[in-house]
Order: sequence, then structure tokens, then C-alpha cells
Amino acid sequence: MQHRPIQRALLSVSDKTGIVAFAQALVQRGVAILSTGGTAKLLREHNVPVTDVSEHTGQPEIMDGRVKTLHPKIHGGILARRDVDQQVMAEQNIAPIDLVAVNLYPFAETVADENCSHEDAVENIDIGGPTMVRAAAKNHRDVTIVVNAKDYDRVIAEMDANDNSLTFDTRFDLAIKAFEHTAQYDGMIANYFGARLPQQESKFPRTFNAQFEKKQDLRYGENSHQQAAFYVESKPKEASVATAVQLQGKELSFNNIADTDAALECVKSFEQPACVIVKHANPCGVAIGETPLAAYDRAFRTDPTSAFGGIIAFNRELDGDTAKAIVDRQFVEVIIAPVVSQAARDVVANKANVRLLECGQWPAERTPSLDYKRVNGGLLVQDNDQGEVSLSDLRVVTEKQPTDAQLQDLLFCWKVAKFVKSNAIVYARDGMTIGVGAGQMSRVYSAKIAGIKAADENLEVPGSVMASDAFFPFRDGIDAAAAAGITAIIQPGGSIRDEEIIAAANEHGIAMVFTGMRHFRH
Amino acid sequence: MQHRPIQRALLSVSDKTGIVAFAQALVQRGVAILSTGGTAKLLREHNVPVTDVSEHTGQPEIMDGRVKTLHPKIHGGILARRDVDQQVMAEQNIAPIDLVAVNLYPFAETVADENCSHEDAVENIDIGGPTMVRAAAKNHRDVTIVVNAKDYDRVIAEMDANDNSLTFDTRFDLAIKAFEHTAQYDGMIANYFGARLPQQESKFPRTFNAQFEKKQDLRYGENSHQQAAFYVESKPKEASVATAVQLQGKELSFNNIADTDAALECVKSFEQPACVIVKHANPCGVAIGETPLAAYDRAFRTDPTSAFGGIIAFNRELDGDTAKAIVDRQFVEVIIAPVVSQAARDVVANKANVRLLECGQWPAERTPSLDYKRVNGGLLVQDNDQGEVSLSDLRVVTEKQPTDAQLQDLLFCWKVAKFVKSNAIVYARDGMTIGVGAGQMSRVYSAKIAGIKAADENLEVPGSVMASDAFFPFRDGIDAAAAAGITAIIQPGGSIRDEEIIAAANEHGIAMVFTGMRHFRH
Repeated sequence: MQHRPIQRALLSVSDKTGIVAFAQALVQRGVAILSTGGTAKLLREHNVPVTDVSEHTGQPEIMDGRVKTLHPKIHGGILARRDVDQQVMAEQNIAPIDLVAVNLYPFAETVADENCSHEDAVENIDIGGPTMVRAAAKNHRDVTIVVNAKDYDRVIAEMDANDNSLTFDTRFDLAIKAFEHTAQYDGMIANYFGARLPQQESKFPRTFNAQFEKKQDLRYGENSHQQAAFYVESKPKEASVATAVQLQGKELSFNNIADTDAALECVKSFEQPACVIVKHANPCGVAIGETPLAAYDRAFRTDPTSAFGGIIAFNRELDGDTAKAIVDRQFVEVIIAPVVSQAARDVVANKANVRLLECGQWPAERTPSLDYKRVNGGLLVQDNDQGEVSLSDLRVVTEKQPTDAQLQDLLFCWKVAKFVKSNAIVYARDGMTIGVGAGQMSRVYSAKIAGIKAADENLEVPGSVMASDAFFPFRDGIDAAAAAGITAIIQPGGSIRDEEIIAAANEHGIAMVFTGMRHFRH
Repeated sequence: MQHRPIQRALLSVSDKTGIVAFAQALVQRGVAILSTGGTAKLLREHNVPVTDVSEHTGQPEIMDGRVKTLHPKIHGGILARRDVDQQVMAEQNIAPIDLVAVNLYPFAETVADENCSHEDAVENIDIGGPTMVRAAAKNHRDVTIVVNAKDYDRVIAEMDANDNSLTFDTRFDLAIKAFEHTAQYDGMIANYFGARLPQQESKFPRTFNAQFEKKQDLRYGENSHQQAAFYVESKPKEASVATAVQLQGKELSFNNIADTDAALECVKSFEQPACVIVKHANPCGVAIGETPLAAYDRAFRTDPTSAFGGIIAFNRELDGDTAKAIVDRQFVEVIIAPVVSQAARDVVANKANVRLLECGQWPAERTPSLDYKRVNGGLLVQDNDQGEVSLSDLRVVTEKQPTDAQLQDLLFCWKVAKFVKSNAIVYARDGMTIGVGAGQMSRVYSAKIAGIKAADENLEVPGSVMASDAFFPFRDGIDAAAAAGITAIIQPGGSIRDEEIIAAANEHGIAMVFTGMRHFRH
């Protein structure tokens, strides 16, 4: 059944992008235009014939625009069921409105200004706009709602293909977009004001409102009996797994995405060319080097067994030689880099299954964001871990002073430990991980594992340094490190037994520095 | 400055709870009542004097109620700035509306019915309601918006204390509630229809809209340089850490909440009295027993070192003896149980810091929900892991058949492995964990750790059974298990080398069962 053609449209947009061309195209197709305020003015300047909403309703725009479209002639025109409400429309002289193009006052932009006053924020809460958007979306059986300038062309093209009407599927699709838009809008308002309650001392609003856009459905979740999807922020703040473009390879899995995130965020920590290999959410090999290839070679050496089927991230363009070294040597699930050279693409093309991702370049400063931890019935929300220490933050607590080379290795090792699941112990030497002890319930076992793994790979521990993501509760961790040949230690400090632990380090002639910062990651 | 007293109120509620009493209280305080439809009818039945909105506006309610309040006399009355818009109000004969009590059509309840048609869902999208709610909330400087019946008493009480007016703080607080309500409402609509797009094959909507309510601000997040808060679902579906009432002790930390969730969800897996001790997100000791005390004693024995400062969960009422055994023996961060006896409360009261939580009883069937994994710029959403296997799901793949006792231990062990971070290897015997190998990047190291820990605690491995959360990629894991004295193994199966792995088990005289289900947990 052919749908009624679009004969009357109401255009009232805050974002004026493309609105003139859209209006002109509608007029060319015989559509009468209703409009208000700035939109009407702009259209008239471009010689688009426009009827003001106030003229249409017979009701002047009042209260500086607070009330202009909230009128039965507008909302009756939008909400009328074309097959049921004809009589009342005739009686009340209500003309049908077939298309509504509205987007909302820029609340987000207004409150992004730190000096935004309460009054400014309040004035930028749109009332009439969301009402028209929601009314038109509700009545999508008969009405088209357009909230995004990107959809103007699609609407015109479909009108041309359908005698000036749209298909139900398109109207329904656009209606969902409308509710997505209003949900996001009111969520933003609730978040903003909900963090500004009287007596509120926290930046966390009373309700936490979040909206993410689906990037892809996934074959399954962490396990095949769990369904899953990957959502991204509407405006991702920096290059990340969410912005990454997949250049080739099998579809990304849930675990691929999680591990790629871990690998990429870890490799961002380093200024020199670096490579991070992640397996089961933990870095199993990390190294810096003169080149990406050198970094990869060394990262791989830490734990070739775990690197098998791993996720590999770089902080430099992926070149052909590095790509070749990887695919010749090992089974790899994902390779990600800010830029992937053509040579690398050509090399990896021979391995059709390998997922190759290019994520773009990130800024020098990491972007603050919020991290979530889901629990049954609730959500823990926290700042993502942006903690960083530099040389000047380190406090040497032992008689032995670390050498410059040790200090470099300690900082390297500390950056890795931040991304290893707690309790985390990392051994490193010359900008390369020697042993990674991850995810243990007591710190001493993480230290044991780091040592065992180093020994199993014939990596020389004596002369290496060690990082611990949290303080040592007892001296046993230091004694074990000394026995393994560790010469310098980096850790937060802050145990009630610090004195005893420092004494242990002094006894063994180990240099130890405190960061004053912990990096639990679970 | 005294605020203008409330003189006119508009009441139009879907949820009629308390509305008659509220209206009567308003009338007694000299407030004129505007109302519509079912609300007006109900009030009249209770002899509350009411003016119909249609009478007030001079505009009949049309289109079966689709258009009734969308009128300048209503919205001008709500949105007028009392200090600026007096003249236009007089000219347009717009009377100020000082209080709006509105809640919305029950969209959630409508669509909860699986047989709900598209038309029913659409008809239950409220348009007029959210517009009044949002308009009144925007104009909270002058207007009071009440969206929740629970706030009626508070409004009346504050009117009585303030010559029939409310404070700005209260109006602002109620305005935020209003936007929280509309954000939640439109998020729900976007989720519902966003999962019903044409050609949509996934249950995951195009945008993922979530709202959580803050339960408490936290001192900090996983680390002290991260700010954090704990949010809960508005209607938690089952007893959980989110529903738990803290009976005593220090404030819960971020890590406490996360670990309590892990411990509680794990202990829910068992039908017999059980105890789970969690440290750093992993169970470090799990046991069943005749009584909670017996279960705790055995769970503690697995790894007393890690149990120090742990989180302890029970699936039975916490009795006084068990509470006493815990606090006499060890430093404990949190104890949680469905019910906490008075005797247990008395015992724990002597340790003022111990956090004691009572969460209520959960249903026999776990409630499906969604699990999230945050990545930079995005969110992975999946079904929470509801996978369970019973005896009849197990497939014996070896010549050796497991005994009944072994089968019981295998199922016990499998339930624990589901809650251990991957790669997970768990040794168990007689319903008690003997060694837990958690969070390793290669499976063989998880197996090694389980063995090392069992040996370190002088627990006897020979005769124990073993669970692996995912299949063994190589036979080395089986060989290592045999060397340790493991007599039966439970694992998903599904490796391309299953044949070789089964052969290894046969060689060692080990019984092995396949579950066909994996339990990665990262």
C-alpha cells in the first residue's frame, strides 16, 4: 500500500547544517514548510517559502520562545492518526504535518563551558523540540521525524523513489533515532544537574545515565553460550579499539576486543617504539626498542608460549618487516597500530585470518574517562586509571641508589605492572619484560611466577629490576627477589611494615624506590 | 526571600498511588486543582474539586487523549517566568501553574508482556506527560514537579513549614528527579524499539541506554587516585551485593564491593551449605560442608595466607559459631550472607571494622542479566554467564569411568573454576578446593600454580580431581596433572588435539569428562 505523500513539513533546528538545501528540496517536491525563529529567518534569506508556526496556529510566540510550538494545531497535526482522526482534524481545523525535522538546543555544548551558569544551563533545556521529536516519533506510522542532518539526503532520495512518500521501515528507523536522541539528551541533563544537587560533594550524579552506539553484533561473548555486542561512545575521545578500523581478517570476538584494548592502552604508555603482547587480559611480553621490529622481537622473547595466539599492539606505524616477522613466527589473533603501512598490509594479506587494525594516532596526553565494573544488580563507576609517575616522583628509600639505567628500567617496569592484573609483579631488564607474575591472590605467588617464567624461558634474572603494583605486606617478597638476583625494586610503599621492608632491601644491597601510587587492576 | 505560595496544581498521573490524599491536602491548603481523564474522575469520586484541563484551556481533549495538555495555556502556565512574563500572561489569559504532579504511561509494564503488539507499545509512549514533566522541571525556579508518589508527603510537609511554598533546593531536587524519570523513560523506549529494527537479528538494541541509581559515593576507586561511586539498578532482580544491607563495619571500598560480588555469586552456585573466600577478585578457598562452620573451616584451609584480609560469603544464615570462628581466626574485610543471625551480629560487633552484610535470600534460579566490560571509547555488553552443567550433561571420554564421589567433586570443582579468572585450573577433593591456579596467560602455568599452592599448604593432591575452565591445547596439562596425582578431570573439550589429550588421560588411568561448555572469565 502506497503511503500518503509528504505534503507539509515542520522544520525547526538548532544545528542548521544542510537545512536550507533540505527545505529547498522539499519545496521542489511540493511540500509546504512550517518553521520558527532562526530556522524560518534563514530559510527566508534563501528565498524558501515559509509559514511561521505562530501564523499557522494563530498563537504568538511568547515568553522569549519558551512557548511557540506547544499548541494543539501543531501537535494535533503531528499526532493525528490519518485513518481515525479526520473528522476532529476537520472540526478543529488541524492540518496534518507529515514530516518533522527538529534537533535540540545544544545543552552539551552549553554546559561544556566551565563558566556556564545555572541559568544558562537551564535556559538551554529544550522543551518544545523534544515534544515535537517524540510526538512525530510516536506517530511514525504516519509521520517522518528527522533529528540528524545526515538523514536529509536519504529522505529526499526515498521520496523520489516512492512518489514523495517514505517506507514504513524508514519512518520506524528514524523514529528510533528520535528516541535515541531524546534519551541521550535527557540523560545528559540528568547527569549534569544530578552532579549539582544541594549538598552534593561528589562529581558522580545521583543517577548515572549512559548511552552507547552499537558498532557490531558479536558472534558470542566471553563464552559461546553468552550473546554479546560491541558498543562505542558516540564521540570517542581518542584513538582506541573503539575507533579502530579493521583492515582485514576474521570478525573480532568479544575476547579479541577486550585484549586489544588492554594491549593498546598499555603500549600508549611508552614514548619510544614499543610492543605489547597480550594474552588472557594480561601483557605476557612488553618491550621497547629502536624500531617496532626490535621491540616486537624482545616482547616475544619474554614468553613465546603465551604469545601464541596473542594480541600485539604497537605505538608506531606498523612496517612491512615487523609484520613479516610476526606472521612468519607465530599464530597471532590481532595486530593493532596507529597506522599500518601498505607494506604491512601486503604481508598480512597472506594470512587471511589475522585481524589487522588501524586505530589512528592518539594525543600525547591520555584522555580522562570513566571505567565501569559490573556487579550483579549494580555498577561500580570510577575514573579510569590515569596515574603516571615520572623520575621526579620517585623517592629512593634505600642506602643503595639506583643507577640511571636502573631508573629507566624501573619506570618501564612500573608502566607494565599497571596493566597486569593484580597482584602484579613484573621483572624487567633493558626495556624488556623478563617475567610477568599476574593475577595472584597473594603477592608472593606473583613474585614466584615471575621468577619461574623467566627461568623457564632461560631469561637471566640477575641484574633485572622488579615492579610491584602495590606495596609488599611482608619482607618475604624482597627476600625472594634478592634470591632471584633482582637489583632494584619499584613499588608504591605505604605498608605498616615499610621499615622492615626497606631494611630487607638494604640487607640485600637492593636499590628501592617508592612511587606513592598504587596500580590495582582486577 | 519567601517564594510564591503554590496556588494552582496540575495532577495527571498514570500511577494513582496516594494521589487522592495528595489532592485533598493541596485543596485544604487553598490550591486549585487542574486534572485530566482518569485522574480527574478519581478525584471527583473522592469529592475533590477539580477543573478539567479542557475546560481550563477551552480546547477539547482530542484524538483519544493523544492531545489534551499540549496547549499554550498549560505550557505557558508552567513555563512562565513569574518576574518577566506577567504582561503576556495577562494578555493571553494564562494562569500560572505552580505545581505539576505527573507520572508516565507504563511503557515498561506494557512491553514486559511478550505478546505486546507494536501498536500497543507505541500507544503507551506518553507524549503529553513527559512534556509537562520537562517543562515544570525546566522552570524549577518557579514551579514544583513531582514524578514520584513517595514525594507527596514531603511536599505537603514543606508547604506547611513555609507558608505553602517550597524551598529552591527542594524544587531543584525534584526537577532533577524529573529529568532522571524522562531519561530513563526514553532510554527504555530506545532500547525496546532499537532491538526491533527492520532486519535486526540481534537482541542488542542499536543504542544501549542504561540508568543506574547512586547507592553511595566511595572514598576512592580501585586506587586512591581514582574517584568512584557505587550505583545500583532501580529494581535489582535478585539478592546481591547491590541489595545488601551493611549491618556494621567500615565503609565498603570499591574493591570490597567487587570482591563481595565475586564471592556471593560463586557461593550461590552450591546447594549444600558452602563458603567462598575471595581475594583480589579470585576465590582462594571454596568448600561445602554439613554446616556453614564446616564449610568455612575447609575453605580457609585451602590458602590461609590469601584468606587473610579476604571477603567471605555464605549461602546459609550466618550463625554465631561461624562468625566467631572467622573473627577469632583471621583478619576479614567483609562477611556476607543471605541472613545474619543475632548471635552472629553480637559476635562481630566486637570487631568494629569488619563489614557485615545481609543480602537477603536469592531465588533457586539465577536471574539473567547483562554483563559489561569497559574498553577505552566503548563498552562490551554480554549475557552474564548463566551456564550450568549437571551430571546428565557430562560426557565421559576416557576408558576409566569416574566414581560417584569423583563426579560430585568434578561438578564442585567446575562450579569454582567458573569464578576463577582465566586461565583457571582448580584442584578439589571432598567438596573442598585443594589448589587454585588463577589468571595465567598459559594454561600450564595455572596448573603449576594450583599444584605449588596445594603443596605449600600441605594439602594432599593425590586423589584430587581437577577442573579446567577451557580445553587443554596440549597434553602437557594432563601429564602434569597425572604427575601431581590427579585422578579425574573435568573440562569443556573441543580442542583439535582432544584425541591426543584423551589418550594421555587413558595412559595415566585418569577419568575425564567433557562439559561442552567453557567458562572464560577475565
